[in-house]
Amino acid sequence: MATDAKKRMLKEGALIVHRKGFNATGVAEIVKAAGVPKGSFYFYFDSKEAFGLELIDEYSLMIAGIAKAHFTDETKNALERIRAFFSSFVDFFTENEFRDGCPIGNLCLEMGDISRPFQEKLKSAIEAFQEGMATIISQGQKQGEILPDVPPESIADFLFSGFQGALLQMKVKKSIEPYRAFETLVFDRMLENAG
Amino acid sequence: MATDAKKRMLKEGALIVHRKGFNATGVAEIVKAAGVPKGSFYFYFDSKEAFGLELIDEYSLMIAGIAKAHFTDETKNALERIRAFFSSFVDFFTENEFRDGCPIGNLCLEMGDISRPFQEKLKSAIEAFQEGMATIISQGQKQGEILPDVPPESIADFLFSGFQGALLQMKVKKSIEPYRAFETLVFDRMLENAG
Repeated sequence: MATDAKKRMLKEGALIVHRKGFNATGVAEIVKAAGVPKGSFYFYFDSKEAFGLELIDEYSLMIAGIAKAHFTDETKNALERIRAFFSSFVDFFTENEFRDGCPIGNLCLEMGDISRPFQEKLKSAIEAFQEGMATIISQGQKQGEILPDVPPESIADFLFSGFQGALLQMKVKKSIEPYRAFETLVFDRMLENAG
Repeated sequence: MATDAKKRMLKEGALIVHRKGFNATGVAEIVKAAGVPKGSFYFYFDSKEAFGLELIDEYSLMIAGIAKAHFTDETKNALERIRAFFSSFVDFFTENEFRDGCPIGNLCLEMGDISRPFQEKLKSAIEAFQEGMATIISQGQKQGEILPDVPPESIADFLFSGFQGALLQMKVKKSIEPYRAFETLVFDRMLENAG
């Protein structure tokens, strides 16, 4: 029951912070959405910041789950697996009118400059995600499917940038076009091993 | 004198909002930094939002000035001009410990979902900037310097995404590496017309 209350606060908090940002989300809102007494919050979390840091783990786990489903899909080659992972968010963003974006990317811009613990935790989360992607890229390079002679870590870093920037633009352009430009240039033109 | 007070509020406000974000910046802070009486703010701006919308013009003019200097540099070909434009920010970001990022990109994430006037104004600002870049790209394609048969508008959109995403990552990685990954993949590998 105790653990359940904590899980519910993280789960509901993740939704609210994704929509409104971390600073605009109040503790009262989180406990209300989770249906737990207000006192529970500070029983489970030392501070709102401590809660925010656990939220980063929550988001990372969610994204890692989606990534794993695509990255282990043996019906596709490495490049197709990565493309399918990014494309899997398209329907969500389109139905959601391109609001909200990536919860990790949002926190980078919102909290990166103002909280050292957030900055360090977000850095670790991004690096862990990119390591997983670099592994697939490296396999694709060995199979001759992906542009060789560029470090897989640089390709993973670059894919993350291109996707985050497309999300940022989609938020104001209210169109899937920035994602399509990213997808076309990266997957149709750049990473495919022409040799 | 009157116009001067307005200009100073926009100039000082631009610096503060770039550092702290729009919502975290107070009117009192802006008038203090500009050295004008508090009443002046609402004499020149109908609301803080109206001020924010003029700030977008302020940032756009600043960026357009830097872009023009690089885009008209006849000692370079089209691809080199665009690369020089993006690279011109590297020293600023490095000296600034990768804080702050792009003022336009920051406002997209902070305000895109919560204010329709901001969303529309940011959209126009980004589109105007990308049109200018698409013109240079199109010239480069005609000269055979840049990957042909991809619409120049898509390339401009994609370059903007890659750069914004790199800035976002630099904020938490505290390293120039995300910019280098973007630069290497885009300018050394992707856009160069291999044909």
